[in-house]
Amino acid sequence: MERIRACVAEHEERFLAELMDFLRIPSVSAVPAHARDVRHAALWLVDRFRETGAQDCRLIDTAGHPLVFAEYRVSPDLPTILCYGHYDVQPPDPLGLWHCGPFEPVRREGRIVARGASDDKGQAYLQMKAVDVLRRTHGLPCNVKFIVEGEEEVGSTALSTFLPANRELLKADVVLVSDTAMLPGNVPAITVGLRGIVALEVEVEGPSRDLHSGIYGGAVANPATMLCRMLSSLHTNDGAIAVPGYYDEVVPLSQEERAMLAQAPFDAERFMREIGVAACIGESAFTPLERTTIRPSLDINGMISGYTGPGSKTVLPSKASAKLTARLVPNQDASVAAERIARFLREHVPSGGRATVSVGHGAEPVVVSMDHPGYRAASQAMAEVWGRSPVPIRGGGSIPVVALFHSVLRVPPLLMGFGQDADAIHSPNESFGVENYLKGIETVASFMRHYVQLISQG
Amino acid sequence: MERIRACVAEHEERFLAELMDFLRIPSVSAVPAHARDVRHAALWLVDRFRETGAQDCRLIDTAGHPLVFAEYRVSPDLPTILCYGHYDVQPPDPLGLWHCGPFEPVRREGRIVARGASDDKGQAYLQMKAVDVLRRTHGLPCNVKFIVEGEEEVGSTALSTFLPANRELLKADVVLVSDTAMLPGNVPAITVGLRGIVALEVEVEGPSRDLHSGIYGGAVANPATMLCRMLSSLHTNDGAIAVPGYYDEVVPLSQEERAMLAQAPFDAERFMREIGVAACIGESAFTPLERTTIRPSLDINGMISGYTGPGSKTVLPSKASAKLTARLVPNQDASVAAERIARFLREHVPSGGRATVSVGHGAEPVVVSMDHPGYRAASQAMAEVWGRSPVPIRGGGSIPVVALFHSVLRVPPLLMGFGQDADAIHSPNESFGVENYLKGIETVASFMRHYVQLISQG
Repeated sequence: MERIRACVAEHEERFLAELMDFLRIPSVSAVPAHARDVRHAALWLVDRFRETGAQDCRLIDTAGHPLVFAEYRVSPDLPTILCYGHYDVQPPDPLGLWHCGPFEPVRREGRIVARGASDDKGQAYLQMKAVDVLRRTHGLPCNVKFIVEGEEEVGSTALSTFLPANRELLKADVVLVSDTAMLPGNVPAITVGLRGIVALEVEVEGPSRDLHSGIYGGAVANPATMLCRMLSSLHTNDGAIAVPGYYDEVVPLSQEERAMLAQAPFDAERFMREIGVAACIGESAFTPLERTTIRPSLDINGMISGYTGPGSKTVLPSKASAKLTARLVPNQDASVAAERIARFLREHVPSGGRATVSVGHGAEPVVVSMDHPGYRAASQAMAEVWGRSPVPIRGGGSIPVVALFHSVLRVPPLLMGFGQDADAIHSPNESFGVENYLKGIETVASFMRHYVQLISQG
Repeated sequence: MERIRACVAEHEERFLAELMDFLRIPSVSAVPAHARDVRHAALWLVDRFRETGAQDCRLIDTAGHPLVFAEYRVSPDLPTILCYGHYDVQPPDPLGLWHCGPFEPVRREGRIVARGASDDKGQAYLQMKAVDVLRRTHGLPCNVKFIVEGEEEVGSTALSTFLPANRELLKADVVLVSDTAMLPGNVPAITVGLRGIVALEVEVEGPSRDLHSGIYGGAVANPATMLCRMLSSLHTNDGAIAVPGYYDEVVPLSQEERAMLAQAPFDAERFMREIGVAACIGESAFTPLERTTIRPSLDINGMISGYTGPGSKTVLPSKASAKLTARLVPNQDASVAAERIARFLREHVPSGGRATVSVGHGAEPVVVSMDHPGYRAASQAMAEVWGRSPVPIRGGGSIPVVALFHSVLRVPPLLMGFGQDADAIHSPNESFGVENYLKGIETVASFMRHYVQLISQG
């Protein structure tokens, strides 16, 4: 461990400079105008893998954004760890709230500020630097593969198609995913469950063109009003989901399971203060932490209708639309949940209105076993680097491919991430702690050594 | 009349070319970036007045966009007609739906297509060309003043301040407003009432930044959902306004009055077909035409929250906002109505939400007398040019200053307009019939002669 730590310290500035270079590439997967930037990020990664001696290392073209695959072969007799990350990032809007350019990374108060710093370029790159460090110190203790995708923020379509067709290429004993967070105060944590997700879009059509609100107002149904009525029907007054049958498949957790997860320190006052709200909402039978992890949710991500520029424009808009995502928990099924919501919305179109509800990308919820050697090795590595054993936690977010690694590749996923809530991922001024980045490198390197040890003992 | 008609025919191409020049100036009053264009339009008008021999002719600077005043003095013994129009236009969005550039006017199928063609540049300019024609034929029969404003589409603030301070300058016997429409099939009509208006904006604040909908979804109130709930509460299921007391001051019309207004041909099937809706909504006790003219309405003009770009962004938005306008009828008071709506919205903020409701520009509703010589002269002129007497109609739109001409200047307004419903004002591909423009010139010229005749007959 001392050699790993010393090596990270020695190369610290280079490791940080490389990450900054990576962050300068605006690889926003959702925006077609950024397609070339997304590809640029993939090519940049290929170069970095090549520099660190990957035997096989390639950009894989897909119908969408490319995949990057790399392999460090040590011996067919040793286990293989597959590392997963994504090099695409969320759109940076609203731009006006950034204190720096979202793709002009700066170091400030021990943090690197840029879109993707934590989600997930910083975390994907620290996995790569762990290999770099091991090669410079103990040597790689096992075979390591990497699969880095460019569509995580838009549903992982290409990788979802690639996985079942490339089981042999991606064959591994465990898949290490670094795209989650630790607990406040950098208390180490391993995510043992993720919510699934499904995205929907609703468009309400009214008149065939924007109308003068004076000439037509009072006799013509306003699509913005219709959309508001439809969206209002989705939740009860306390914030629970009002879609019939929506909770039917949700597995209730035992009191023991709830108690174990409640070990994770959660300060509701701080939670609210950090996001500037005066109260939490949601299902009263569950704690705020439970509402965001072991219970499903349904949120409007955006909506637009009519004139939204400066001043006033007295139109009765022609249409109104909204984007929604539902977060799912075991044993909800993404397509069943989406169909329930879509049907409910269609049933709630006010009379005279026409609405289209379309279902977008989805991912199933995941629960991870704590009995696997991968979990135990990760636990040892975290204890070594961060000074205490990790707390098992359930995450509220979704990593679409994690469920696929499990169900398609039959490789158990291990969710060891190094982010913090304060990273503000998906928000303006996203950042990543320099300590988290550097200690993350140490932790992944240590994990690889512990994993091989446990397997060879087992 | 023959000389007027011949003169219009002779100068037709020039009159059209001048209007096209006027339409090329993107004088969008709502958008600060167009402030210089708005001023450019005012200066352009000053030049046109000067060319046609106005004795007094000036651009009047204000706190907002400038006013243009012009005066043609004939004799202090003769009556004075004040002509009113506006040279500002609505924003052209959504740009993608225009078949030509909104400020690159084209002539197509007997119509001039451009933003402002009908509302109100075409109509303001035909008043000016009527003076041009009279000066070339019979000579001006009376004194004529013009006041042309650049803020009609944003609440007429500058003119509202200017009017009470310049009673002498604007003194007149009648004010001719050409900013309304005829009936389908170019059946002449004179507007005997207008709805008032008041604008409001609502902003709901949620968390202090856009949040990751996975990490926070389920425990944090979504401002888009809160806004939807607030806006949904504004109407009953049938489309009536649910704000308590909102209809209290509305003057009920007698059966006779309703019968007179029902003379205006109104084809509900055609009304719906032209705007592409399958049904009308609104108060069941009133006809669709009544709902848009003698009854108040309340519409969402625009709303926005969160991510509305391509693809998906899984945020729980930080805020959500909407623009609204209410249309008012006698004897509703704009500030009372606005306060009722604002209070109602504030009362309907879901618990845990914070909302700001602000009240913007307003205008009182207007009813015009049919006994005034102005109405009779206009009626004679319309019969002469269009082949039948005009139908008295109530308009659903608002012309903020019309109420002020009445209450502040004590000058009776006469609403003789030449637009058509098919003009699509405030919408993409706004247009104005070439026939309406040219016959509008003839009608205004004829009106001036009839008016002086009626006054001199006593």
